[in-house]
Amino acid sequence: MRKVLIAGPFQEMEMMGSRPEVSLKKYLEAKKEIVDEALDHFLPGVGGISPEIFKSARYSVFAGGKRIRPILCMAAAETLGQDGAMTLPVACALEMIHTYSLIHDDLPAMDDDDYRRGMPTNHKIFGEDVAILAGDALLTEAFHLMSGSDLVKEISPEKLLRIMHEISKASGFFGMIGGQVIDLKSEGQDVTMETLHRIHTLKTEALITVSVRSGAIIAGADDRELQKLSHYGSKIGLAFQITDDILDIEGDQEILGKDTGSDKEKKKVTYPGLIGIESSKETATGLIEEALTALASFDERAEPLRMIAKFIVARKS
Amino acid sequence: MRKVLIAGPFQEMEMMGSRPEVSLKKYLEAKKEIVDEALDHFLPGVGGISPEIFKSARYSVFAGGKRIRPILCMAAAETLGQDGAMTLPVACALEMIHTYSLIHDDLPAMDDDDYRRGMPTNHKIFGEDVAILAGDALLTEAFHLMSGSDLVKEISPEKLLRIMHEISKASGFFGMIGGQVIDLKSEGQDVTMETLHRIHTLKTEALITVSVRSGAIIAGADDRELQKLSHYGSKIGLAFQITDDILDIEGDQEILGKDTGSDKEKKKVTYPGLIGIESSKETATGLIEEALTALASFDERAEPLRMIAKFIVARKS
Repeated sequence: MRKVLIAGPFQEMEMMGSRPEVSLKKYLEAKKEIVDEALDHFLPGVGGISPEIFKSARYSVFAGGKRIRPILCMAAAETLGQDGAMTLPVACALEMIHTYSLIHDDLPAMDDDDYRRGMPTNHKIFGEDVAILAGDALLTEAFHLMSGSDLVKEISPEKLLRIMHEISKASGFFGMIGGQVIDLKSEGQDVTMETLHRIHTLKTEALITVSVRSGAIIAGADDRELQKLSHYGSKIGLAFQITDDILDIEGDQEILGKDTGSDKEKKKVTYPGLIGIESSKETATGLIEEALTALASFDERAEPLRMIAKFIVARKS
Repeated sequence: MRKVLIAGPFQEMEMMGSRPEVSLKKYLEAKKEIVDEALDHFLPGVGGISPEIFKSARYSVFAGGKRIRPILCMAAAETLGQDGAMTLPVACALEMIHTYSLIHDDLPAMDDDDYRRGMPTNHKIFGEDVAILAGDALLTEAFHLMSGSDLVKEISPEKLLRIMHEISKASGFFGMIGGQVIDLKSEGQDVTMETLHRIHTLKTEALITVSVRSGAIIAGADDRELQKLSHYGSKIGLAFQITDDILDIEGDQEILGKDTGSDKEKKKVTYPGLIGIESSKETATGLIEEALTALASFDERAEPLRMIAKFIVARKS
């Protein structure tokens, strides 16, 4: 099975029998619907006197994201026999943090992007001031949601604090933000593989890994289970970013909803830029293989995690 | 005592005997030193591969702030007989949140300020991209700090979650950020007293009140104590913002470290703009009187809170 995977995740999925590409699609769609409903429930509605900020935050949260992070959180909990719905407040908080990072990344002072997923970026609609504040508010709301007293009843306070501590690390100085700074400062520079790996690890892998870990912690994972699931998260997190780099070169602009070639234009350091497209694909595929190996001891309840791993390198957007 | 206060907080302080203005100064200096040391301890140092972000965050955190919020948190705990130092992680998190809000408020897309406390604003030194990220990182770090496992030993997980829930509310959509949006959207508009009151409440009062509440919750306040201390916080929080508005008109530029008259230039809606300087001063003084009344049942351990209330309207910067 693993040998086939190296040949390409698409073939692998087609060979799994019972048309797994269909069941993966159904799984992702069903979970996305649950996450979208929960986000709608958890996100404040349009407030009376400053509707702009709520509209702006909701615009980006409901701009067609794949919900990979919350789905990973739910799927990790389900792998350990827990109801994925129990993770929803934490899962939705992860999506809010992801969304805030996209809003801020797109700002003129940062990546200066006009489109994302085929829609104008937040600041193009609401202005830079509201976009900055909408990002700030989503980040703040994520912690408001996780610390909510309703949650405490279902997830122990100790677990919640641990999860918030891990998520804030993965999003902060030593995670997503640290990676974004190195990325910005590396544009147009000669960068080593070590630095590129560091950027990808901090900027993308950390939050994906913690999404898996959060679900596992909620489900009461023991140390060994948590270690294996973290390993899985880390590998797919890196593969996710490498695939993003590849899609920026050879993706379909219509499916992506944005121009390809933007990394090159911005002189961003990328895997394909450093080691070429083919080696990048091999690296991504190798990482997915490692991720699947990490799941070897889990039973069929880990099937969604396995399918998501394959989807991550096979996706078109 | 209260009648004298109405005549002006300065006279009041001079008449309190034992030169309270000296002991207040000493108290604030001593507490500021403790908070500064704690902030230095809690804030990550200059990291190996992205030193820029740590320098930027530290630049604004150590730019000469008065540390009013953390000092209020400590003083509230001390009022209830608890060691103020126990609140330091939460107190410092409050200062990080306050600092992030200043960095973002100063951005060109927001208030576009070049100076704060006599020093160039963060983005003037580090660029807009790093300034946005430094703000994001400080907000994230505040929650990382509060959720830290070291803390759990001293403050119960339930209390920490409650505090984080309150702080994130006071900083988010229905607090600081909501207020900032209404403020930005009100520039140059005809604004009613009701809206101005709402802006001040959300933008400034909420975080000051929650600073007092956090210290009180950590110290195990009962419902009545918490209610009284919240009332105190709310009144001084509003008085603080009104005094800011007044200082922007008649403050000493050198002491303030920034140009006066900036509110008028930016067509900001302010108390003096709406009801005049004298009425604004009376309002602020009246609020301080209410704040002191709320503390009436507390013993001499509430003296720092009483002095801080008077300082808030008497301050020159």
